[in-house]
Amino acid sequence: MGRTYDRREFIKTATAGSFGIGVATAGLQVQRANTPAHPKPLDLVRMGFVGVGHQGSSHVENFLKIAGVEVRAICDIVPEKVAAIQQKVIAAGQPEPAAYARGPEDFRRLCERDDLDLVFTATPWEWHAPICAAALRAGKHAATEVPMAVTIDQCWELVELSEQTGRHCVMMENCCYDRTEMMILHMVRQGAFGDLIHAECGYLHDLRELKLTDFYEGRWRIRHSISRNGDLYPTHGLGPVAQCLNVNRGNRFTTLVSMASQSRGLNLWAAEHIGPDSPEAAQRYALGDVVTTLIHTAAGPTIVVTHDTDSPRPYSRNLLVQGTRGVVRKYPEEKVYLEGRSPADRWEDLAAYRDRYEHPVWRKLEEQSRGAGHGGMDYIEDYRLIECLRTGTPTDMDVYDGAAWSAVSQLSERSIAAGSAPQECPDFTRGRWRERLPLGIVGGG
Amino acid sequence: MGRTYDRREFIKTATAGSFGIGVATAGLQVQRANTPAHPKPLDLVRMGFVGVGHQGSSHVENFLKIAGVEVRAICDIVPEKVAAIQQKVIAAGQPEPAAYARGPEDFRRLCERDDLDLVFTATPWEWHAPICAAALRAGKHAATEVPMAVTIDQCWELVELSEQTGRHCVMMENCCYDRTEMMILHMVRQGAFGDLIHAECGYLHDLRELKLTDFYEGRWRIRHSISRNGDLYPTHGLGPVAQCLNVNRGNRFTTLVSMASQSRGLNLWAAEHIGPDSPEAAQRYALGDVVTTLIHTAAGPTIVVTHDTDSPRPYSRNLLVQGTRGVVRKYPEEKVYLEGRSPADRWEDLAAYRDRYEHPVWRKLEEQSRGAGHGGMDYIEDYRLIECLRTGTPTDMDVYDGAAWSAVSQLSERSIAAGSAPQECPDFTRGRWRERLPLGIVGGG
Repeated sequence: MGRTYDRREFIKTATAGSFGIGVATAGLQVQRANTPAHPKPLDLVRMGFVGVGHQGSSHVENFLKIAGVEVRAICDIVPEKVAAIQQKVIAAGQPEPAAYARGPEDFRRLCERDDLDLVFTATPWEWHAPICAAALRAGKHAATEVPMAVTIDQCWELVELSEQTGRHCVMMENCCYDRTEMMILHMVRQGAFGDLIHAECGYLHDLRELKLTDFYEGRWRIRHSISRNGDLYPTHGLGPVAQCLNVNRGNRFTTLVSMASQSRGLNLWAAEHIGPDSPEAAQRYALGDVVTTLIHTAAGPTIVVTHDTDSPRPYSRNLLVQGTRGVVRKYPEEKVYLEGRSPADRWEDLAAYRDRYEHPVWRKLEEQSRGAGHGGMDYIEDYRLIECLRTGTPTDMDVYDGAAWSAVSQLSERSIAAGSAPQECPDFTRGRWRERLPLGIVGGG
Repeated sequence: MGRTYDRREFIKTATAGSFGIGVATAGLQVQRANTPAHPKPLDLVRMGFVGVGHQGSSHVENFLKIAGVEVRAICDIVPEKVAAIQQKVIAAGQPEPAAYARGPEDFRRLCERDDLDLVFTATPWEWHAPICAAALRAGKHAATEVPMAVTIDQCWELVELSEQTGRHCVMMENCCYDRTEMMILHMVRQGAFGDLIHAECGYLHDLRELKLTDFYEGRWRIRHSISRNGDLYPTHGLGPVAQCLNVNRGNRFTTLVSMASQSRGLNLWAAEHIGPDSPEAAQRYALGDVVTTLIHTAAGPTIVVTHDTDSPRPYSRNLLVQGTRGVVRKYPEEKVYLEGRSPADRWEDLAAYRDRYEHPVWRKLEEQSRGAGHGGMDYIEDYRLIECLRTGTPTDMDVYDGAAWSAVSQLSERSIAAGSAPQECPDFTRGRWRERLPLGIVGGG
């Protein structure tokens, strides 16, 4: 108890002090010393892309707008997708990037190029870790769409490779850059909620049609629903919450339990929309329609994570962040209650606090991000990655974050398979979480 | 899997068939055969009350308005409270009820009277089970405020006593009679949400001031926060959800896991409002500020239960009921999404469906219940109890329900003490849950 309490006090002090706005110099030094990668600043970031479907091509468009980026190579299993992106790069005034379309392992040739600084992956989940590993082994920085990995072994492999090579391995959790999520992080750092006690989050997105039709290349996504029962996609909700709770930075995930409902949604949708005798309707899906996970953290706060991708319901990330002084929630409405400020027992609109608590990055970049993917947050995410590489500062998320957040999937699968038995969460920092400082409120360059 | 599926089919059929509006005759016979108590109709219900503080006195006022009730005896450890209630009974035109105020065990003399049909308890939690047991042993029906019991052993004792004596033992879960909760149950029975998949509920009520001052007689409630870490008060949220999910009536709780956050709220409030050197500020409280529990049910659906009584936040019971065809939620707003009816990806106001789905009991009793405790639901709860006793029909909630819902407290304490290890939920029906029929939509007499 003593240690936990001291830790909380430390976090509070650090939060109130060094991390008001901007990362103080002393903090930055400590942060660097405990970051797996701390390379020299890059004037130019030369990028290769692996996977340029829906999400990958959207990222390419963002990066083409960011100063100091050159797109040198494009890889995809579909040659037409590669060609389309090559044209976009040319249209943006850059030389034609090299094409890699000789099948699913062709990313290895891309990684071996000697003119790349960063390999960016937006492929089916199971390819993220192998591609990042190949990039790191070839001395490149790696950035990947979520999740960073499907298994805990893959998480460890990437942690070790990032530490050994001193290269960044960044999981691109775009929801950490959502305007509301960033404002909430800012409020947390300003102490608006007091000491944090509890958080809730999730990914509740009706994907039945997308999973059961040809939206995803080769229908890769449904295969995970067929073979796995767990929280397959935790990071959109968990990333922002983990940043608020200083996970890997003064706190860490310790124990996790998961529980799954029965599986009905996919069979029902297939029977009604494809046909009662279709293979999709007859298929057995391992994934429960609603998977709920509880995570305990070393500093005391608990987290509830919901995964629900097979139900008819409005989109939600079920966000809630609660402390000793108040609570904020998002979905369906953005509401806040601050003790002593809000009317007794009444939620207020979060928008009423925007002038006071808007995150500095959003103040700076809102105009530039307009029209980019997912309400602009994808642009800000990509902008911050390049900014960190060009200034030689630690990335907002590093390999420990990607590993801790992604590992929740396999841990939840194991818990469910064992009748909701608790699972120990690996400490990918190997104890360095105690010294690492909380993510600051950066000013946006 | 086969059995589970058959069970679901059975429930669906039973729901769509016998239980549209009103309990069909065949259903009632099956229900009676599997109900612990099925006494003859009572023309007059002669009541004794144990505990007439805040909640008990409010119930007395309700019962004085219900035809066929006589209040014969009043017991409390505070003589002034007994005297005040005696005056209320006289003012209502009934003879003066007998007084029992010779200390905490005087309820035993009350139970031994030979002119009582029903003993109603609204005392501190730890007294509920002993008082109900004394009433049952004396051949009286027992009704108690929530929870029915604090320990699983007490739950079993009351189950066995109710079965042996053929007397009702009813836990008075008033939230089962809330207008919105009853409308949701009605929607479930009408199939609005398809087959149920998941539910969420809880009790989130900032009780810091009430617990730490003299609101509760002898400050009984804070003692539970000092000595117990678990969901101390699950039934307000869980009762309505359990009815929707047919728990003990075609379904049952099977496994439970709980997790607790750190405990901060009570110490902080005491330090600031009583004094930093006060005993209340120095006290160690076992209860975590937020306790989250996951419950698996035999038919497949999962339940998330939240307990949070020490945080600054608006009141909530976090209600959510979700099925294959839609989802409804309450707190802070009452919203619903019904596939094929609601606009795509958009919540609608639940109020828009009130004309169609208002529960018949509320249609009938809304006028009568106006002004009664907790928005009228307490009156409807009391009305239904008397109606069942006077018609000789099974009560809406019976001893199995009170036991299953109340046992969640000790199960969650055990899970938390064991690092969130899963706990088997006792089957208080000893297998009869398979045959018992779902609670119907009664018409309100």
